[in-house]
Order: sequence, then C-alpha cells, then structure tokens
Amino acid sequence: MTGDQGASEQSSALRQPAEQPIAAQQPATIDQSAIDGLAARLSPGALTTDPDIVAAHARDEALFCPHEGAIALVRAASVDDVAEVMRFATANRVPVVPQGARSGISGGANGSQGAILLNVSRMNQVVAVNEAERLVTVQPGIINQDLKNHLAPYGLSYPPDPGSVALSSIGGNIATNAGGLCCVKYGVTRDYVRSLRVVLADGTVTTLGPQTAKGVAGLDLRHLFIGSEGTLGIIVEATLRLVPALPDPLTAVATFPDERTGLQTVADFMAAGGVPSLLEFLDASSLSMLNEFGDFGLDAEAGSMLIMQVDENPFDSQSTMEMFAEVAQRCGALDVAYSDDPADSAALVAARRMIQPAYERFAHAHGGGQLLDDVCLPRMAMPEFCDRLNELRSRSGLTIALVAHAGDGNTHPSVFFDASDADETAKAQEVFGDIMRAGLELGGTITGEHGIGYLKREWLSEELDAGAQRIQLAVKTALDPLGILNPGKMFARVQPSARP
Amino acid sequence: MTGDQGASEQSSALRQPAEQPIAAQQPATIDQSAIDGLAARLSPGALTTDPDIVAAHARDEALFCPHEGAIALVRAASVDDVAEVMRFATANRVPVVPQGARSGISGGANGSQGAILLNVSRMNQVVAVNEAERLVTVQPGIINQDLKNHLAPYGLSYPPDPGSVALSSIGGNIATNAGGLCCVKYGVTRDYVRSLRVVLADGTVTTLGPQTAKGVAGLDLRHLFIGSEGTLGIIVEATLRLVPALPDPLTAVATFPDERTGLQTVADFMAAGGVPSLLEFLDASSLSMLNEFGDFGLDAEAGSMLIMQVDENPFDSQSTMEMFAEVAQRCGALDVAYSDDPADSAALVAARRMIQPAYERFAHAHGGGQLLDDVCLPRMAMPEFCDRLNELRSRSGLTIALVAHAGDGNTHPSVFFDASDADETAKAQEVFGDIMRAGLELGGTITGEHGIGYLKREWLSEELDAGAQRIQLAVKTALDPLGILNPGKMFARVQPSARP
Repeated sequence: MTGDQGASEQSSALRQPAEQPIAAQQPATIDQSAIDGLAARLSPGALTTDPDIVAAHARDEALFCPHEGAIALVRAASVDDVAEVMRFATANRVPVVPQGARSGISGGANGSQGAILLNVSRMNQVVAVNEAERLVTVQPGIINQDLKNHLAPYGLSYPPDPGSVALSSIGGNIATNAGGLCCVKYGVTRDYVRSLRVVLADGTVTTLGPQTAKGVAGLDLRHLFIGSEGTLGIIVEATLRLVPALPDPLTAVATFPDERTGLQTVADFMAAGGVPSLLEFLDASSLSMLNEFGDFGLDAEAGSMLIMQVDENPFDSQSTMEMFAEVAQRCGALDVAYSDDPADSAALVAARRMIQPAYERFAHAHGGGQLLDDVCLPRMAMPEFCDRLNELRSRSGLTIALVAHAGDGNTHPSVFFDASDADETAKAQEVFGDIMRAGLELGGTITGEHGIGYLKREWLSEELDAGAQRIQLAVKTALDPLGILNPGKMFARVQPSARP
Repeated sequence: MTGDQGASEQSSALRQPAEQPIAAQQPATIDQSAIDGLAARLSPGALTTDPDIVAAHARDEALFCPHEGAIALVRAASVDDVAEVMRFATANRVPVVPQGARSGISGGANGSQGAILLNVSRMNQVVAVNEAERLVTVQPGIINQDLKNHLAPYGLSYPPDPGSVALSSIGGNIATNAGGLCCVKYGVTRDYVRSLRVVLADGTVTTLGPQTAKGVAGLDLRHLFIGSEGTLGIIVEATLRLVPALPDPLTAVATFPDERTGLQTVADFMAAGGVPSLLEFLDASSLSMLNEFGDFGLDAEAGSMLIMQVDENPFDSQSTMEMFAEVAQRCGALDVAYSDDPADSAALVAARRMIQPAYERFAHAHGGGQLLDDVCLPRMAMPEFCDRLNELRSRSGLTIALVAHAGDGNTHPSVFFDASDADETAKAQEVFGDIMRAGLELGGTITGEHGIGYLKREWLSEELDAGAQRIQLAVKTALDPLGILNPGKMFARVQPSARP
C-alpha cells in the first residue's frame, strides 16, 4: 500500500486550493413571460411557480442544507420536457436542480437560488423487460421496490437495495451510486447499469454505453455519470442488468458484550473468506432504540449484534454459518443463533430496516436533531473506528449510535442532539466532521453510499488530493461550462453562473 | 427498449461531425540537448534514442496501424520517471505514447510522429498483498499471469483472464478494461479495480478512488480512467480486489451440425438462467485450424463446438451441466460430453487458448493476413450475426473464422487474406468494417474488449451518437488540453498539438 505517499499528497491537497473554479457568468435577464413561454412548451401542467408548491419540493431529507430560492418546479412527463428545460436553462443561464424522490440525505436535491427544480418522479414507468438478455429498461422516477415487485413475476431480480428501497427512485440510486444491505455479495448500483440515456446541459439527448455484456468503445461516460449527483446531466432512462430471483437466505444472529468484538468478528469472518449476502451490525444504542420503537424482541443486554445472511446452496450456506459461529465465538460472542425460516429472516431484516424511524423517534424525544454519517472503512479498521467513536462520545457527551453494512466496512454513525440548543447543535456538527476525519485517518472515505450533495461538499477536498480535485473540476466544467447543473452541490468551489 | 429513438440519434450522429477537436498548438522547438536533459533526470539508462531500439518498441500486435516517427523510448523504472516525462512533454508539447507489454491488437500502443514511447513494463512488482482486505497493490507492468501465480500461495485469485493472460500487463488490462474467458461469471477488469494511481498530462501524480469496498466521494474518475487507453493519463499503480481461489470447474463439450445451432444453444441456455464460469464457441474453421496446429483431437466433422464450464458447488454444477445438455440437445447438438477431471478441463481450455497461434499458422500458409474483430452482441442476436458472417463469406470469398466468448455475446471473427495482394487486402479491410456494421445493426458494439486504439478510431463515430461524441472530446480535452496523451488514438478528430 502507498499510505505514506498518499498522506503527503493529501496534506498538500489541503494546503493547495483547487484550481479552475467555473467562472461566474452574467445571467441573462429572466422574467415571467420567459417562464410562461417555457411552460407552454412543456407537458400541460408540468411547470408551476406557485411558491407553496415549489417550497414543498425544495428539499430532500438532509439537515443543515440550504434549500431556498427556487423559482419554479417542473414535474417532467417526458424526455422532451427535460430537454426543453435544459435548452431553456442554457439559453437563460438558469440553474437546474435534478430531483427524483427527494429521499437523499446529503441535500443533493435541494433547491438553490434562482433554480428550476426539475423533478422526474412522474417518469416512473417500466419501458421494457427483456427476459432473454435479463435486462430491464426503466424511466428514472420508478421507485426501487416498485421495480423489484414488477420483476418478481418474471423470476428476475434487481439486487441493489439501499435502506431507502421503498422510497428512493432508480434515477436517484444511479445518480448517487446507491448501495444497501445486499452489496456485500451483490455489489452496488454501478454493477447493474448497462446503458443510460441522459440529457446534457444544453438539452442534447444522448445514450451512454451499449446494452451488451461487454463494451469498450471510447471513454466510459456511463460510469462517469453514475454517482455524479446531477452535476453532469440528467438521467432520463436506464437499462439495468438483472439476475435470477435471489434465493431465500439462511440467517444467523450473534450478540456480543461490546461493539469492538462484533466488528472484529466481521473483519475476521470476511478475511477468512466468508461470502455472506448480508452482514449488518447494530450497536447497543441502536438495539435499545429499536426495542423502544417496536416489539422486535432484540437482546436488550447485548453490547452489539450482527445479522448475517447467506444465500448459497445448502451445503455452502451451512458451512458459512458454521464458520461465522466459530469466528463469532472465538471473538467472544454472547450467543449465536440460526434460522432457516424465511419468516424469521424477513422479520430480522425488517427490524434492521426500521432503524431510521427508530432513530427519528429517539431524536424526537431528545431535542429533534440527528446527523447520519456514512463512512466506509477497510473492514480491519472498524474496531479502531469504534474506539474513535467512544472517544467522541466521551468528549462531546452526545449520543452516537452506530449501524453498519459491516461486511463492506460501510458504517452509519448517527449523532443525536438538541436542535433547539445552538451550542449542542454546533457541537454535533463538529462531531459529524470528526467522524469523517477519523474515517479518513483509518484509510476510509467520507461517503460510502450517500454522496456529497451539499452536506459534505466542504469535505470533498479533505479526501481527494490536489490532482484529483483539479480534474474533478475540469470534467465538471467540460460538461457543464455554464455551471447550471445542480450548482453548489458536490463542488464547494464551483460557482454557478446563474441568477443569484 | 429504445431502439428506434437510438437509431435516429445514431444516424444523426453520422451526419453531424463531432465538435470541439482539440486545437493544434505550436510545439516549442525541441533539440537533442533537451532530450539529454530529460535523460539525466530519469533513472540511469531509462531513455534511449537509438533508432533500432525505438523502432523495435514502436508497435503492438495490430495490423494496418501506423507506428513510425517516435523520437525516444523511456523504460520507466519509477513513478518519478513517468512524472518527469510528462512534465517534459507538457513543457515541450511532445506527444507521449504510454505502453505496457504491447500485446494489444488495436494499435493503441503504437508510436506516432515526434512521440516519446513511455513504457512501464519494468515497473512490474507486487507492492503489497493485503490478505485481510483481499486486495493487492501492483505496479502496472506486471503480467496478468505473473500476478495470478503470485497470488496462488495466498489462496487468492484475480479473475480477469484475457486471451493474452500470459503476455499482457495489468496496466494495459486496465487501460483497455480487458475481458476474457471468465467474464461470463466473474466480470471484466473494471469489476476488480479499487483504486488507481495515475500521472496526469502535466506530471501531477494523483490517486483516484478509495481502497474501500464502497465509495462515492465526487465524480468517479477511477472508472473514467479504466478503458481510457492512455488518452487521459498514465496508470502507475493499481489496487485490485481479489476473490478466494477459484474452484476447479466441471467441463462440458457439445458439438453441433452448424454454427447457428451452437449459438442458439448459448442464447437459450443463458436465458434459462445458466451460470457458467466459461462458455466458449468455436466454428468449424476454427476447429479445423486448431486440429492442423496441434494434436487436440477436436471433432473434425463438427460444424461448431461449445466448451462450457461451471464452478459452483457439486449440486448446482451438476444441475447446470444437465440443463446445458438438455438445451444443447433440444437445439440439435451432435454430441454432449462431460468431464470432472481437472486435466481434461485444462486441456480443453488450453486448446481454446491456442486459437490465435493456430490462426497465425493458417494465415502464414495463406498469404499472411489476419484481421481479428471484436464485436459484442446481445446473446439472442448471435445466430443472426452468424448468418451475416455467412453472407460476407459468400460475397467476399474470404475465409472468416469465428470464436466467441459466447456467454457474453462477445464474438471474435477473424478475416484471413493474402497480404501480398492489394485487392484482397482492401477487400478484407472492407469485410472487417462490414462485420462491425453488422454488429451495430444487431444492437451490439464495435469492440467488446480490445478497445479502439488506432484500428477502430474512424468507427467510433458510427457507434456513438453526436452528443456522446461531443462529451467524449470535451472530457478528453479537459484532461489533456495540449493533446499530448496518446494522440491519434481513440479519437480520430483530436489533433495532437505536438511536433509533426
């Protein structure tokens, strides 16, 4: 590994400001008649400037991210609507904020000054299922779970399952390269995208990537657009690779006296060659908040819990279960239990999926504040990360709960605080940053699956070295020379050209 | 699917020339003393201007691609050497051709006028194996098979296995997103790249991508660089994801009366949910050429052959074998045979891997010419593609042999011709293009795994629509504003700024 050299590049990156911010350009004057003209070219009723409706669509689920100032909402009904908006935006230097289900938690879909909110939620149809090639073509607004349900009768599965599976849309999943619980075996959204249809800043519609299993014709801009958070263009259609319906898993649950032993079990089990289809970690605070939220019967005495699933054939699944139990016991597990009952498995995973509502209830009872972080680490670094969280708990006095897609090293610490207390709020924001810094120091990333959005844009330069920052901006500028695509998101230093 | 709209974009792309060619800039004058100065800053002996040595390193395995005009060869021994060359190249507007093992077949590593050949073959060490995280960090010059051999004692495997596995380097594999035989189950090079260290056009060294399992901090430039064929920067280190050592497979061999039934078997077997770890097709010409080349004992009467392997657990492997046999027989197979003897399996795959030497012997005996194509198709389109090849055989009178990584729809037709006959050579080149056109018409791509290089650069605009062409060039220009990185490769319309 090149840790030392990387670190020295890193610190030089911190000293050296990124170059090539996009030059602010004078916006053309825009008035109501121009907006009316745009509305007339769109699907009937697609555009509204009603301040209440615009405001109601102006934010996602993130805290501490500005979302004011949008001038209109377009609920696009077609690719033509999206292209028309972008042509207008380019002609008039108007910023555009692409939106799907607004279930993100980094502020990526939040409104900004003078912007048109371009929402594609209504474009939510399955265009075609190709059973022979195991592909599906969808519009971007379709909800992930709705796609899964649509595919079930075909015996086909689209694996990516972010925690927001019931809320988030495929377009948003692609724009953030969403992960989830199954990634540890099945990979992330990127691994299932065959081709994308996108609308560029100037309204040009283009197709990126062939629909074939392999393809290397030119630069792979399909992969560049995946995870680009609406900063390069707007995804209006996607063809996705499918797999045969996922088999029912076996499930193991292990409890531990503390957090460290649970996370050490994950590191050791994965290093020993474990191939789980799900491997989730919950700390004592999370277990307690879940028990307060619903009747899940989780062990209230445990210092942490692992839920592990394996969906191989019976022989391999059984040996994986045994290996997991052996590793867990060697690490000091209090208890390891198995189930091959699909109902048990579903109930456990459903409990895990209730963690965010459980957190919200806790937050509601304790001043309302929760900041959800998303640090992905080398798996072996998770126990030490846990020590860092304990230091932060001691120093701040704040409650920090931890769940993790632990098989991938993807941790989600949540910092709780009294949002009515300015000092405590500031302290929570500082701890939120300290968590990212701990992740970077341990060889991780500030975001495993939630994206940068607005929330972490000031942090991007802490992770990327100077060269990477420079070429990030160069690519952004090349595709969005006017700075109209989701300005202020991802790139702290890129100034939109558009009306303030 | 959006075939119709895609087609109309396609044809508009053909009419509309790509915009934004990189402006040719005046090169500074470059003389021997400048070259000597560079040599003094590099590792001892790294730079040579000996015309014979430069000429001997000036090309890869492609036909019909110019390779003359390079002024120097640098055999880099370190990242510093690479950075030094790029600083010099930027300061002096000198084009640079990145090279690894020069085993490519699209001319991507060929010399060009006034260029420095920057060869990284000597940077061929394993930097670190991280067993716990299942990662390996390597220098770019390491040969794929050497890496596999290095990993075997750890019980770890790096799956990607291009046909050139014994010859090609990991840096080149990444630069072309190389595929191979195992892709049908294990995916392509892209699926195993965690992070890259690259040297940019101006000599800046940067790290792209975290080493963690997940990560979405900023635009994913790591994925942009994969498959970029040396046009954006030079890969000087890579951290790769590994998997547990691959299990021994079961092998089935099926023979068919003709090509169409063999390819229909592939389409039907994959549509039925088959999960092979290898699924290779050979047509009658290929079988005949192999039998002439070595004592492989392949059925000389067969119209085509499939080799299928499966490496699941015994239960699933057996049921996959049975399903394969059933589908093959339904499609009209002459014979289906199994083996669970690793030696049999290895011998069959070894025979398949001898196809290129066998082709070369045939070519040698028939005028010396062979053009190897690389069209990837929807699997269901392969039987019709086969009909198109038959039409081309009839029309041209040329021998066209076909092997395919058929499970992925990735076909490799080879056109044979008398290279001493100008008319036949021209006819072969025309047929080579007709094969790509057939691939595009059937929903495929002009290159599944070999890349564009010089060989197919005029064809890129036939596959990409106008918008995609424009943003390809915009991204290229953003990262290589002087046009010094592998000029003339991939982008036909990009003019290098460097000395003619």
